[in-house]
Amino acid sequence: MAKPKKTPRPKAETPKGFRDYFGAEVTHRAEMLRKIAAVYHRYGFDALESSAVETVEALGKFLPDVDRPNEGVFAWQEDAEGEKPGDWLALRYDLTAPLARVYAQHRNDLPTPYRRYAMGPVWRNEKPGPGRFRQFYQCDADTVGAPSVAADAEICAMLADCLEEVGIERGDYIVRVNNRKVLNGVMEVAGVLDPAAPEKFAHERGIVLRAIDKLDRLGSDGVRALLGEGRKDDSGDFTDGAGLSDAQADVVMGFMEAKRADGTATVARLRELVAGSQTGARGVDELELIADLLAAGGYGPDRIEIDPSVVRGLGYYTGPVFEAELTFDIQDEKGRTRNFGSVAGGGRYDDLVKRFTGQEVPATGVSIGVDRLLAALAAKGRLDTRAEGPVVVTVMDKARMADYQAMVAELRQAGIRAEVYLGNPKNFGNQLKYADRRGSPVAVIEGGDEKAAGVVQIKDLILGAKMAENATLEEWKGRPSQHEVPRDQLVAKVREILELQGA
Amino acid sequence: MAKPKKTPRPKAETPKGFRDYFGAEVTHRAEMLRKIAAVYHRYGFDALESSAVETVEALGKFLPDVDRPNEGVFAWQEDAEGEKPGDWLALRYDLTAPLARVYAQHRNDLPTPYRRYAMGPVWRNEKPGPGRFRQFYQCDADTVGAPSVAADAEICAMLADCLEEVGIERGDYIVRVNNRKVLNGVMEVAGVLDPAAPEKFAHERGIVLRAIDKLDRLGSDGVRALLGEGRKDDSGDFTDGAGLSDAQADVVMGFMEAKRADGTATVARLRELVAGSQTGARGVDELELIADLLAAGGYGPDRIEIDPSVVRGLGYYTGPVFEAELTFDIQDEKGRTRNFGSVAGGGRYDDLVKRFTGQEVPATGVSIGVDRLLAALAAKGRLDTRAEGPVVVTVMDKARMADYQAMVAELRQAGIRAEVYLGNPKNFGNQLKYADRRGSPVAVIEGGDEKAAGVVQIKDLILGAKMAENATLEEWKGRPSQHEVPRDQLVAKVREILELQGA
Repeated sequence: MAKPKKTPRPKAETPKGFRDYFGAEVTHRAEMLRKIAAVYHRYGFDALESSAVETVEALGKFLPDVDRPNEGVFAWQEDAEGEKPGDWLALRYDLTAPLARVYAQHRNDLPTPYRRYAMGPVWRNEKPGPGRFRQFYQCDADTVGAPSVAADAEICAMLADCLEEVGIERGDYIVRVNNRKVLNGVMEVAGVLDPAAPEKFAHERGIVLRAIDKLDRLGSDGVRALLGEGRKDDSGDFTDGAGLSDAQADVVMGFMEAKRADGTATVARLRELVAGSQTGARGVDELELIADLLAAGGYGPDRIEIDPSVVRGLGYYTGPVFEAELTFDIQDEKGRTRNFGSVAGGGRYDDLVKRFTGQEVPATGVSIGVDRLLAALAAKGRLDTRAEGPVVVTVMDKARMADYQAMVAELRQAGIRAEVYLGNPKNFGNQLKYADRRGSPVAVIEGGDEKAAGVVQIKDLILGAKMAENATLEEWKGRPSQHEVPRDQLVAKVREILELQGA
Repeated sequence: MAKPKKTPRPKAETPKGFRDYFGAEVTHRAEMLRKIAAVYHRYGFDALESSAVETVEALGKFLPDVDRPNEGVFAWQEDAEGEKPGDWLALRYDLTAPLARVYAQHRNDLPTPYRRYAMGPVWRNEKPGPGRFRQFYQCDADTVGAPSVAADAEICAMLADCLEEVGIERGDYIVRVNNRKVLNGVMEVAGVLDPAAPEKFAHERGIVLRAIDKLDRLGSDGVRALLGEGRKDDSGDFTDGAGLSDAQADVVMGFMEAKRADGTATVARLRELVAGSQTGARGVDELELIADLLAAGGYGPDRIEIDPSVVRGLGYYTGPVFEAELTFDIQDEKGRTRNFGSVAGGGRYDDLVKRFTGQEVPATGVSIGVDRLLAALAAKGRLDTRAEGPVVVTVMDKARMADYQAMVAELRQAGIRAEVYLGNPKNFGNQLKYADRRGSPVAVIEGGDEKAAGVVQIKDLILGAKMAENATLEEWKGRPSQHEVPRDQLVAKVREILELQGA
């Protein structure tokens, strides 16, 4: 008989595609979410926090012909209750699907229109890649039940306010607005959408939509190839095209390139392009109205502009589409200058709760990419990265822990982040190494001699480090890095050093 | 052949045991977490956010002889990669198990001692009950790698500061401290623990531990029965006792009733009880030292006291144990006066990362029950429940939406929460009903006449509601509920009314 195997030790690892966030990574994000929530709130949006877990049925990811919900979500089956098989549950993959469920469930108790914001993690069961995680934050605001484009305009203004609130200066971003209805008008004019027979050319339109959604990646030539005969990629694979003639393709390409020097000229150009299409004209009217409403609120084209080259999401949304882009350059990891690009996007979608209630309810919303925004602020040096380590009260005499505890309590009560060293105090060098690892600005020392003399030593660790770097020391001569002060001046002296360091 | 069934509409429901949180429920909790995080931070604790998903292996819930991880967690299996079966993943059930994994994984990059705080939802796969949910918040702070009870004392002080920071006044709470080592000493004296043969009497000690953990529920007599021959409960079921003699049981009961008028007297009484046990003496020394350290920091027995009647968690922890209790009475749902009870607890546990690394690492920590604290503040009327609905700018003329958008933009830029009505504006009554449902303090009205005259109407909805309730109206005579002001005084007048309402 085989000997029973000893259970091996468990591996201390996050699951693949998940990660831990430490210290400032957590607090910077929390601070950003707090600021965005304040703007959302000021705009009349109410907080909503639904649970991370939904039924697969409510999420709408269930394919009836497979045992297990399809890829893309983390799902599991509840235990059976008697004869009844357990429900399939899943982690939410975004914040919009739960909003649809919440609105359908609670609509009689909610105001109409319902403005709500939500922020929190979502989960995707996808192959993780570098910088691509299976849990990440979303930060959304949506207005449900408002058909008017005033709702869309409001969200664009709010998005601009959010960006400025978190530290993106005016001029460093632009909110660009487009409209799916204008594209539909363009498709009519190009002859791939017949309002009298909307099912016709569905296949071609599908290819057109997918093609323009790839503009960023493939460029004009690639998109044009897909609009026409098709495209062979670098690997030699061939993608079928929509089979549009050059003249038809010109209309579609003209839409994406319709941006002119100002909004009035852009609107005029779009009117030309959709001439003859009612839907297209309505779409241009909507864009014009959004621009007027925004101008009335003081949001001019320096912050929000009509830009038909916004193509992301045109396939998904049904009306206005918007995207916020940061306009400054950053250095990428290889030292190349790049445009930072998109940090938020959204638009109007009208089938939010139809699955649940059969009724179409108009909705529009925005999602801010918090992690990308944090990366942008870090790249611009606009995150507060001052050493925020605690003041460390060192332990010179283990028997006098109460003395050190009293010091640290005084510092904390004065609002100063502080700790007493709680490791083994035998080796004083270890205490200073600990303070260094913590990024401590100040160390406090009170040995037996100091105690007898009623004084404490206060070490400026930031200045000390600078002096250690600088061989000549000349420039530091006038500023000592260690101070001896009477015990009762501990808090005042520490505060003074912290203020000097911050200056 | 049966006709294919039409797919029924999905149910718009949260899974069983989950719920949605709306508006102030979300913001009050966020505000509380922010305040607690600020105190944790001031004490030198660093934020940690691990993902919601862990491997079942790391969580330590995997039973090798069953296909599926055991009850209590939500778990699922990853897809296989080729021959290799997928890992089992699960939602975290607390914040301590992830801390153990994080510390074991990153210990070379973390300071020692490592003070960390974490806050967020955890999930339990349990039968939901009234008021008992399968997702709820935890809010923890732990110190890893500090064997000294100075770490425990610090956490007790921090707990007191947290309670005051969120609005529990001094005198309305008490942090009570006990020590598992004292109980072990008591067990030695009672003859159910032999330091030379620690395996002996393990069965009896198990019963003793479970019995004292039930003190709250069974009372002294019930515990005493379980210490002796056993206990028959109301249903007639019999629970075996530990078989202690009356004299032995007296020692254990004496421990739980050892609290005296002050800490010094309590410590003296405990010393009597554990006389002859080294472990017990060490436990009493620790309690005494904790009290001294806290006194040095200004935390006297009005806030933190030694109390051997704290029995919750004694079975789980290995050293000091602490619990925060709110000492004021509240009315329960049936109108009965009750003590509010425990809102936080914690203690020292020494096997945190041993599963992963084989090394024992001492740790101590606290978990604050945020939802119970919120309930307590609500019961005391200390949550800010002022109507915080937005000012509603009504729409009298759909064609002049830009005018209304300009008003709302001015209000928002002045920091006033405001919205324009985005529903169908045809029925003005619906707009006022909407304002009512939103808890709006003020409505703004600008019809054609007002526009022509350059004025706006500003309606004080709070005062209006009060006047509607009061038949005589006499007392409101001097304070009109509707004001006509020049358009350019919109913001000033709204602010004035809001200030009057808040006063």
